[in-house]
Amino acid sequence: MGEFELIERYFKRPVTRNALGIGDDCALLSPAPGMQLAVSCDMLVEGNHFLSTVDPCKLGHKALAVNLSDLAACGARPLAFTLALAMPVADEAWLAPFSRGLFALADEHRCELVGGDTTRGPLNICITVFGEVPQGQALLRSGARAGEDIYVSGTLGDARLALEVFRGTLSVPAEVFEAARSRMEQPTPRVALGQALLGIASSAIDVSDGLLGDLGHILQQSQVGARVDTDIAAGLMGAPAGSLAADLRLEYVLAGGDDYELLFTAPPARRDAVKAAALAAGTPVTRIGQIEAEPGLRLMSGAGRLIDRRFASFDHFA
Amino acid sequence: MGEFELIERYFKRPVTRNALGIGDDCALLSPAPGMQLAVSCDMLVEGNHFLSTVDPCKLGHKALAVNLSDLAACGARPLAFTLALAMPVADEAWLAPFSRGLFALADEHRCELVGGDTTRGPLNICITVFGEVPQGQALLRSGARAGEDIYVSGTLGDARLALEVFRGTLSVPAEVFEAARSRMEQPTPRVALGQALLGIASSAIDVSDGLLGDLGHILQQSQVGARVDTDIAAGLMGAPAGSLAADLRLEYVLAGGDDYELLFTAPPARRDAVKAAALAAGTPVTRIGQIEAEPGLRLMSGAGRLIDRRFASFDHFA
Repeated sequence: MGEFELIERYFKRPVTRNALGIGDDCALLSPAPGMQLAVSCDMLVEGNHFLSTVDPCKLGHKALAVNLSDLAACGARPLAFTLALAMPVADEAWLAPFSRGLFALADEHRCELVGGDTTRGPLNICITVFGEVPQGQALLRSGARAGEDIYVSGTLGDARLALEVFRGTLSVPAEVFEAARSRMEQPTPRVALGQALLGIASSAIDVSDGLLGDLGHILQQSQVGARVDTDIAAGLMGAPAGSLAADLRLEYVLAGGDDYELLFTAPPARRDAVKAAALAAGTPVTRIGQIEAEPGLRLMSGAGRLIDRRFASFDHFA
Repeated sequence: MGEFELIERYFKRPVTRNALGIGDDCALLSPAPGMQLAVSCDMLVEGNHFLSTVDPCKLGHKALAVNLSDLAACGARPLAFTLALAMPVADEAWLAPFSRGLFALADEHRCELVGGDTTRGPLNICITVFGEVPQGQALLRSGARAGEDIYVSGTLGDARLALEVFRGTLSVPAEVFEAARSRMEQPTPRVALGQALLGIASSAIDVSDGLLGDLGHILQQSQVGARVDTDIAAGLMGAPAGSLAADLRLEYVLAGGDDYELLFTAPPARRDAVKAAALAAGTPVTRIGQIEAEPGLRLMSGAGRLIDRRFASFDHFA
């Protein structure tokens, strides 16, 4: 199977929402009047972002999901994406399920594949995703102000739990592992929530490197500090309380990585609006702390005790 | 050196032409009113698109050049790009010259780095480039009509000559090799010519897989055929006539690959306009044949003799 046949068979589909799709030197995009184009790009490498044993269908889902999660964090509506794919060989047994998983998620979000590149090389998946957001309204990392609430969507730490089981450092009951594994392999980008939070949230980021590390980005770019309630945070894990030690639980929630939930801030006056947005998007959100004027990130128990512990954020070169 | 320090040190620069650059979940782009966004994406893999011994500065140039060439083929003006980079280690001795070469070409075209991803893995460079083009005016592969002239810019076949010297299948004088090597390692994207041809050319493509293969894409999408003059084509090589056999010369010109010249069509009534566009862009163009109603691609000698020879187009999985 040659390069052009591969594209024709697995990746070329009629493009309806954009001006021009696969098959020319460029794709052409026309954002609606008054809209800005939001662009994000993520590269997934075997052995680093996924295991060689992963189901290609789930990998197709995840490769797009992590990119859609970046659009969600800006409150953008997905429009289109490009896919660059390096593979050792053009293997149909891999390509068929990969493209199936990819397009299933793309269709769910009406996000069209408009271009890309395929080439021979060590397995590498690079997706660039495009969304639109009303001019000047995108949710940024720099908008958090002292006194605002800090929220996170869904559950945290389960992807890390699954990774540690794969690594052999942890053992949990089979049903706990399966649920966690699904979170790791097929994360749900919070696209509807991101859009619902436009005009409500003051800042947002997606949690991909760990809650504390990503909150750190908001604090840095907003030039503020924060207090996070560790009792509330510890309750954010999907895996049942008895399935692992309390300190590991807190570590996975605060610094697990690969969660793809939204972390955002909003003024206390907008608590009802945040609740309504979460309800409309069908995504639970939890208030976990507060933005403070004093720089730094403070972990407090529910009783108000300061917790002195360091958690490393995920770094691809550390 | 960690992931964030690496980005900060080598890739973060102030962004002036776009709404938001590196450092948030998405970059924000605002095409001017009446403009469409042209998007293209190319992935470069070590051993396939470049040799491990290549000067990183030249590689930085080439990685962006091959993407700008796609914008040129649509007549789009460069705006911005994203860079996803996988490297085995964060090596400063590689990153410093790579980013220098990359930004030198980016600055030349006022094309700003607005986002991306860095990760550990086998060396892989994936760039997605954005340009703008007036609504409905992009040069496409589908616009060629019978009776139109076929043109190509610059010179062809020299990159292939250099590759064959590297492969050890060919030996040429040192000065011929150096000139050809420079064409292979630092191609010049024909950005000004592409824009100058808006409203003049009826179709265009960039020559990356070989002249005949890329002309084939125009013929297929325009549903036409073509005749190409092999005597004129043979004169398109930069390397002097005596430096290699005539049949190799013709093969490298017609099916060499890695040229990044523009191949385009225009009505005979626009010959003066094509000349003026080439002059304005400072890029020579040569008329090499004609579009015909009869499907298929015919190679003719200057004397009108049909040449019966097959040339394989470059295919990354063949």
